[in-house]
Amino acid sequence: MSPDDLTALLTRVQAGQLTVAEAASQLNSTGIAELPFATVDLDRSRRCGFPEVVFGEGKTPEWAEGVVRKLAAAGQDAFVTRVNDAQAAHLGSAFPTAVQDRLARTFLLHSAAERVTPVGDVLVVTAGTGDLPVAQEAVVTARVMGANADLIADVGVAGIHRILRHRNRLNAADVVIVVAGMDGALPSVVGGLVDCPVLACPTSIGYGASFGGVAALLTMLNSCSAGVAVVNIDAGFKAGYVAARIARRVHKV
Amino acid sequence: MSPDDLTALLTRVQAGQLTVAEAASQLNSTGIAELPFATVDLDRSRRCGFPEVVFGEGKTPEWAEGVVRKLAAAGQDAFVTRVNDAQAAHLGSAFPTAVQDRLARTFLLHSAAERVTPVGDVLVVTAGTGDLPVAQEAVVTARVMGANADLIADVGVAGIHRILRHRNRLNAADVVIVVAGMDGALPSVVGGLVDCPVLACPTSIGYGASFGGVAALLTMLNSCSAGVAVVNIDAGFKAGYVAARIARRVHKV
Amino acid sequence: MSPDDLTALLTRVQAGQLTVAEAASQLNSTGIAELPFATVDLDRSRRCGFPEVVFGEGKTPEWAEGVVRKLAAAGQDAFVTRVNDAQAAHLGSAFPTAVQDRLARTFLLHSAAERVTPVGDVLVVTAGTGDLPVAQEAVVTARVMGANADLIADVGVAGIHRILRHRNRLNAADVVIVVAGMDGALPSVVGGLVDCPVLACPTSIGYGASFGGVAALLTMLNSCSAGVAVVNIDAGFKAGYVAARIARRVHKV
Amino acid sequence: MSPDDLTALLTRVQAGQLTVAEAASQLNSTGIAELPFATVDLDRSRRCGFPEVVFGEGKTPEWAEGVVRKLAAAGQDAFVTRVNDAQAAHLGSAFPTAVQDRLARTFLLHSAAERVTPVGDVLVVTAGTGDLPVAQEAVVTARVMGANADLIADVGVAGIHRILRHRNRLNAADVVIVVAGMDGALPSVVGGLVDCPVLACPTSIGYGASFGGVAALLTMLNSCSAGVAVVNIDAGFKAGYVAARIARRVHKV
Amino acid sequence: MSPDDLTALLTRVQAGQLTVAEAASQLNSTGIAELPFATVDLDRSRRCGFPEVVFGEGKTPEWAEGVVRKLAAAGQDAFVTRVNDAQAAHLGSAFPTAVQDRLARTFLLHSAAERVTPVGDVLVVTAGTGDLPVAQEAVVTARVMGANADLIADVGVAGIHRILRHRNRLNAADVVIVVAGMDGALPSVVGGLVDCPVLACPTSIGYGASFGGVAALLTMLNSCSAGVAVVNIDAGFKAGYVAARIARRVHKV
Amino acid sequence: MSPDDLTALLTRVQAGQLTVAEAASQLNSTGIAELPFATVDLDRSRRCGFPEVVFGEGKTPEWAEGVVRKLAAAGQDAFVTRVNDAQAAHLGSAFPTAVQDRLARTFLLHSAAERVTPVGDVLVVTAGTGDLPVAQEAVVTARVMGANADLIADVGVAGIHRILRHRNRLNAADVVIVVAGMDGALPSVVGGLVDCPVLACPTSIGYGASFGGVAALLTMLNSCSAGVAVVNIDAGFKAGYVAARIARRVHKV
Amino acid sequence: MSPDDLTALLTRVQAGQLTVAEAASQLNSTGIAELPFATVDLDRSRRCGFPEVVFGEGKTPEWAEGVVRKLAAAGQDAFVTRVNDAQAAHLGSAFPTAVQDRLARTFLLHSAAERVTPVGDVLVVTAGTGDLPVAQEAVVTARVMGANADLIADVGVAGIHRILRHRNRLNAADVVIVVAGMDGALPSVVGGLVDCPVLACPTSIGYGASFGGVAALLTMLNSCSAGVAVVNIDAGFKAGYVAARIARRVHKV
Amino acid sequence: MSPDDLTALLTRVQAGQLTVAEAASQLNSTGIAELPFATVDLDRSRRCGFPEVVFGEGKTPEWAEGVVRKLAAAGQDAFVTRVNDAQAAHLGSAFPTAVQDRLARTFLLHSAAERVTPVGDVLVVTAGTGDLPVAQEAVVTARVMGANADLIADVGVAGIHRILRHRNRLNAADVVIVVAGMDGALPSVVGGLVDCPVLACPTSIGYGASFGGVAALLTMLNSCSAGVAVVNIDAGFKAGYVAARIARRVHKV
Repeated sequence: MSPDDLTALLTRVQAGQLTVAEAASQLNSTGIAELPFATVDLDRSRRCGFPEVVFGEGKTPEWAEGVVRKLAAAGQDAFVTRVNDAQAAHLGSAFPTAVQDRLARTFLLHSAAERVTPVGDVLVVTAGTGDLPVAQEAVVTARVMGANADLIADVGVAGIHRILRHRNRLNAADVVIVVAGMDGALPSVVGGLVDCPVLACPTSIGYGASFGGVAALLTMLNSCSAGVAVVNIDAGFKAGYVAARIARRVHKV
Repeated sequence: MSPDDLTALLTRVQAGQLTVAEAASQLNSTGIAELPFATVDLDRSRRCGFPEVVFGEGKTPEWAEGVVRKLAAAGQDAFVTRVNDAQAAHLGSAFPTAVQDRLARTFLLHSAAERVTPVGDVLVVTAGTGDLPVAQEAVVTARVMGANADLIADVGVAGIHRILRHRNRLNAADVVIVVAGMDGALPSVVGGLVDCPVLACPTSIGYGASFGGVAALLTMLNSCSAGVAVVNIDAGFKAGYVAARIARRVHKV
Repeated sequence: MSPDDLTALLTRVQAGQLTVAEAASQLNSTGIAELPFATVDLDRSRRCGFPEVVFGEGKTPEWAEGVVRKLAAAGQDAFVTRVNDAQAAHLGSAFPTAVQDRLARTFLLHSAAERVTPVGDVLVVTAGTGDLPVAQEAVVTARVMGANADLIADVGVAGIHRILRHRNRLNAADVVIVVAGMDGALPSVVGGLVDCPVLACPTSIGYGASFGGVAALLTMLNSCSAGVAVVNIDAGFKAGYVAARIARRVHKV
Repeated sequence: MSPDDLTALLTRVQAGQLTVAEAASQLNSTGIAELPFATVDLDRSRRCGFPEVVFGEGKTPEWAEGVVRKLAAAGQDAFVTRVNDAQAAHLGSAFPTAVQDRLARTFLLHSAAERVTPVGDVLVVTAGTGDLPVAQEAVVTARVMGANADLIADVGVAGIHRILRHRNRLNAADVVIVVAGMDGALPSVVGGLVDCPVLACPTSIGYGASFGGVAALLTMLNSCSAGVAVVNIDAGFKAGYVAARIARRVHKV
Repeated sequence: MSPDDLTALLTRVQAGQLTVAEAASQLNSTGIAELPFATVDLDRSRRCGFPEVVFGEGKTPEWAEGVVRKLAAAGQDAFVTRVNDAQAAHLGSAFPTAVQDRLARTFLLHSAAERVTPVGDVLVVTAGTGDLPVAQEAVVTARVMGANADLIADVGVAGIHRILRHRNRLNAADVVIVVAGMDGALPSVVGGLVDCPVLACPTSIGYGASFGGVAALLTMLNSCSAGVAVVNIDAGFKAGYVAARIARRVHKV
Repeated sequence: MSPDDLTALLTRVQAGQLTVAEAASQLNSTGIAELPFATVDLDRSRRCGFPEVVFGEGKTPEWAEGVVRKLAAAGQDAFVTRVNDAQAAHLGSAFPTAVQDRLARTFLLHSAAERVTPVGDVLVVTAGTGDLPVAQEAVVTARVMGANADLIADVGVAGIHRILRHRNRLNAADVVIVVAGMDGALPSVVGGLVDCPVLACPTSIGYGASFGGVAALLTMLNSCSAGVAVVNIDAGFKAGYVAARIARRVHKV
Repeated sequence: MSPDDLTALLTRVQAGQLTVAEAASQLNSTGIAELPFATVDLDRSRRCGFPEVVFGEGKTPEWAEGVVRKLAAAGQDAFVTRVNDAQAAHLGSAFPTAVQDRLARTFLLHSAAERVTPVGDVLVVTAGTGDLPVAQEAVVTARVMGANADLIADVGVAGIHRILRHRNRLNAADVVIVVAGMDGALPSVVGGLVDCPVLACPTSIGYGASFGGVAALLTMLNSCSAGVAVVNIDAGFKAGYVAARIARRVHKV
Repeated sequence: MSPDDLTALLTRVQAGQLTVAEAASQLNSTGIAELPFATVDLDRSRRCGFPEVVFGEGKTPEWAEGVVRKLAAAGQDAFVTRVNDAQAAHLGSAFPTAVQDRLARTFLLHSAAERVTPVGDVLVVTAGTGDLPVAQEAVVTARVMGANADLIADVGVAGIHRILRHRNRLNAADVVIVVAGMDGALPSVVGGLVDCPVLACPTSIGYGASFGGVAALLTMLNSCSAGVAVVNIDAGFKAGYVAARIARRVHKV
């Protein structure tokens, strides 16, 4: 509760417009929806600018459905990531109007609220073709969060001219997401070409000593280009989410 | 070279205003200063908005001095990080007007150019007192890069009220840097309180199974708060640099 | 054998009430049931307060059945954890009166002995919904061991108000178990809110650099809250077991 | 703030006994002492039963002194761990009445408050002689926290009779701390001998593939004895702290 | 673009034989084929001596087909590695004249261009029988790249006479590839027998603490024989590719 | 070739009883059987006391059959470990008289040679029931190699009396193999009870931070009992093989 | 206590030749010497054939002296390993007749008992010169334990003929210890040349990815030669100790 | 011994020109110089084209001197790497005519033999200035081995134009060594620009999650450029050695 809200509330208590019990209740609880298996954070949107996003892994289809219903009932967008096939089928039946992207493995049930015009430009770049599912998760997420997002695929450093010819597009973006597996070298090159923030997202593409993306992750954390921050392996969602926060902040001022 | 610059150059060749040799030279070389031990990137500032920053580790004091001289000769700011005692003494003698911060272990030799007015607000938060050197490196870096930067120290999650009372300051920032060692849990809490991007910087503070910051690094990469991106262990410089890119981008629009 | 028991036994030898052979046998053997594939510790209950618990993994259904029969024959509770589907079916047929919990993957065959009244309060808290199977294993175990156990689900730190509103319940418990995957940050927050011991149980929920729960494990070992001890990844059983030892000790005095 | 306190405060606002500004201030702030380098949690004692403990590592002697002064000024015990030689000398001069234990590397400045009578029995056991500094830190901590603590040294499993002869003492304790490096096997044996909770604390004693205590840590996390919880490597402080929480809880009922 | 080519191009601009737009286009683009999911590097052959090789993992059969078509359309050899069963079937139908090796898991569609005569001698040696699939990938790759390649199987160091009797063949090769799992000791022995470069390729054959080839990888990186360089685990392709570069270089002079 | 054999051979050359070509052939070749996929070491038995053992993993059933045939043709025992179901079925059909143990996953085709009387006593002890497959592989291997081998199951340290009651059997053995997963603590206890060599074999039984047997492996390498040597994770074969070497050596003198 | 001893004792109780108190005392205690910092196992020699060996690391010189005095007072050999310079000087003054080996870093104070004639042959082989301190620790230990021990230095596999010319000496040994850093490949070669047990001891010699001996350790655990068991990194003591157990067992029969 | 040599030797035995004893001696021994602490491989030069190189680490100055003397006495070059200050001073006094490079930490004592004319071109490239010591070790080694070697410093990918302007020099080399710490990304870029083999050498330059060069090592092993092989961390010697083997082989044909 913001200081202003707090003062307002206390003033109403003082003025007798609000009972002590009601005030205590408001101070103790903010928007939460409780289920036997979940405590849905209905206040997330107010604090962070977007409703709680549902992480699909480890949930039964029924649990996923339950959380989506609570969000929808609260008039909020319900966005689910890492949706497996069983969940996709179940949620598709339960919410026929929802939009699913099977490459990105995402599910979106829009609230009835009018959609905001997207602001800011997120550019997603991949080193290889195999990085596309993760990149697509980033694109979908950034768009759902209210940013524009575009994709350039398969421009890894083994053919350095492939990325160099996109310098203008890179420089036009508010934030660049670079998705790469194997050696994870692309973000270092991109970071040295632009003056906007670069988000590096390692993928588990590769074999042997890539250790499921650890090699690319370490490369990115140790990038010799100073303008590069990193998210978890295969975490296209997180890259898109942070990028959208940046893009929206840029166009908020 | 931008497409427009390229067209202009070629037009001048076509018009006979530029010889083929001169044009080839310009296309082949951009601002580089060569030393036996370094190839200084004098074009970095044009591409990335700030000159090449010198990483002090692994350099003799003489090598560090040499690179600083090349940057200064090109009229650019010379900023050195991870300055050890021997380098600090040597550089202090060589460049008496430079500014050094021994807590942050930084060295700055300003160019004669007029300083730009700082834009954007970077807020640096630490979980503990031992995280201060890294946090200070972030603060100094963000300021050198042209952003405003402020610091809140020692508000780790073991006393959760310490961070909660700063909600307003957190919400006012364009980007929040959270510096934490040990369990590295603070960024997850901060990420759930704000709608701006959060940069998490792990430190090597801790003992036993903190493994020199690895524990905090992993915590941050796995943050349950989606708005958190991560930089390398003890990389206050990188956190400050990325934050300044974001802050400047915000106020560029 | 306790000193008192030993003295009693020797006194009986001295008095000729016990032959040397019998005394040697008693000193050499304590309650053990031998099978070709197992040496069941029938003395565990006397020493540790609860019979040996059967770890289901790596056992054929027949081996599991064999050990359960030996425990039952000795009049002891037979509790099996990590029961897979094949074992569940086999044991269900063999012991129709047993109780199985498929979320917790546990099997319990009560002895004929009267059940003790549960003592002490164990509160199990999870950071996310996906942590529920592990949490449920902790709840079931604590109850089987003779403690009261309750569960609060999905109150991770990204929405910090979710856990803060349960302060009273947290403070009323004798011991709190916090089950969390991903960043594993919740125990550090809980540890700073209560004065009872906190047991942190990491789960393998998460992706990429969570490394199957290692990230959460390290977070918990490095908790900035001093009152936190840790058990193995996904070891809901162990968390529940230690918690019950604490809870029973509390109410034994 | 507890619900009762909150209701009381709001009632006073309603009754006009407290201004809105004062109430807002109280709701926003709890006991904190601010320094440029630290935010001392003066409320820790109320919540957790003992004041904030100062972690010495990474602090200048002056920073350590500053925090101790704030705690003392608030009438609270000031306990510092991991005190290095320079800090010990500095703090010794600054606070001549404080008690330091150089084997445990601890510093304690008692508040003027009357000392509470210690309750509960913590027994600390070490596998080897080299584990003594860590064990001593546990002993000192448990005592400072208000529990009785005793020590048995060097009873590792290579001579199993050494621990077996202490069965009675083990069974009399409310909680046993087992400190061990190298193979870290002792907690598994102790865990099978007692019915109270066992806290295992790995040490960095050993060589080669002990990896600074990682081997012992993993042994303890994987203990075949179910009643064993684990703390960080060399974290004698944490073991003593958790043990004291258990011991005090036992005698609180 | 080489300096000579650049001068030639600029001279043509100067002479009015090339428009500014055409020159800019040529300077900005080199041979690339764009697909929605790939940016095929058609210039790779000119720079590196062989067309871009397609890494099968992480690609749908349709994506693999698409890239093969682009390479074929450009008159280049299309070589795919790590071809799984579904891709093999799909590509086999799409390109009936292509050659597939299911042990090596490779696919090759030759361009219409006349084949070059192979040069140089690559000798591939395996420590065990289980290393054969990786070794075969190396053999096929080296041949496709234009070198002669031969194979000696199962001559690991446990029977040291098995490799010693091949000294003459080893000494006759231009480069030796040693493929080994488990202890990965064979390259160290071979490296001490020959004066040509040795490429060591670890495999994931082994169990327990071989960690999927990490043990063999480390052995090879630490080889006491100085003439040994290393490629990734199971990376028969890369070993064959580097070997062919060496072999061709040898016979180019 | 031994010095005596060498002198004898050269003397025959000198005497004209052996041609130079024949002598060169004998000096260059020792018993090897070559297949396209294997180089069978038929000399292993002479050097090491037992024929080459076939490691089943990574071999097609046909490859396994081929090697067995070569060994049989040379009149040697053919022993295969890590036999999977497909190999077991194939080899069973091909060699109906062979003996297979599906718990140990071994295959043995005895040569026509008379069997030697087993010598020496190997005692295999397991900490848990789930360690049995590995222990059985050790038992079978030791017997095949010519030693007596016996098994005690499930006597882990959580019930320390289980192993203590077998002191006499432990002391009677020439070598003790201790097979344990989870904490791997049993070898340290056994090592302190006996004066014969102890071989510790970690297993992958356990969960979470056992990391597939790494925890037990490290425990054993760091055993506080000096008389303990270690073999690879799940390497029952290797434990049995080394034990048999010791047992046979003991009874050779 | 052996069964026979136990029967004898109980018979004496029965016969009234031993009081109950005395019998209880004997059953409860075996040879232990207690110090404030150590519990010396004076029964180790009876059980394991050699007195408890003192591990120097982590002990103050005074602690080391105290334990040595207790062993000496009991008429037992006092052997200390990993003796640092300060301990060496202190112990040298305290026990002028003791023998110290500064390359092996060992200290030995012989008891007055007559020395036994050494039995069995231990051969220690090193891959490089830098492995000598560890090898010397193995040699000294084996001799102290009562075996003959000899050393061959610097015969690593990069010059394979260096080890092959020692075949006769290798075959004459009862047990071979192979000490190697870097790639750790030598034990695999030796294991394939002999029929006695081979003990592999990795050293921390090497750089970069040798990771302080981990590379060599893994090589040895994964040895393709079946007759190889492994001890901890740099654990020359343990290698010598296990070897002496084997050698003595061989000549005991 | 080669087959031809063997036939010649046996023919001389047959002809009575060589005694059996002399022949046996020649077959059993090849050029070895024995010291108490080393077995110098004087045959290395014949087999591998260059004498045994001495690894300085872990050797006393006297041991290093001893080996150098043996090589010199045999008329061979004595090359020592990783020479520390104490060794450098000692060897400098002992061999005043030797050449030492303190940046590369190498020592070279030339034999009296005429020097061969260097052949082949090795180009060493570094990503940063801090990589220079390792790069210099590679340069010195390659030259000592008989190749030409040249160096380009500090052309990392953060300023990609720095390496692109050296394309001609890169393409002119027979082999390129790329030395890089931090992200280790440069080899991937270079590998895509040339058609000769590329040797990547990671350095320990970097901080935090570079883990002493592990990050760069993994990047290089996972290089998306197929023409890249890798050597150990900081192993400039090995990179130079393998490069020289390639360069000499190229110009041998």
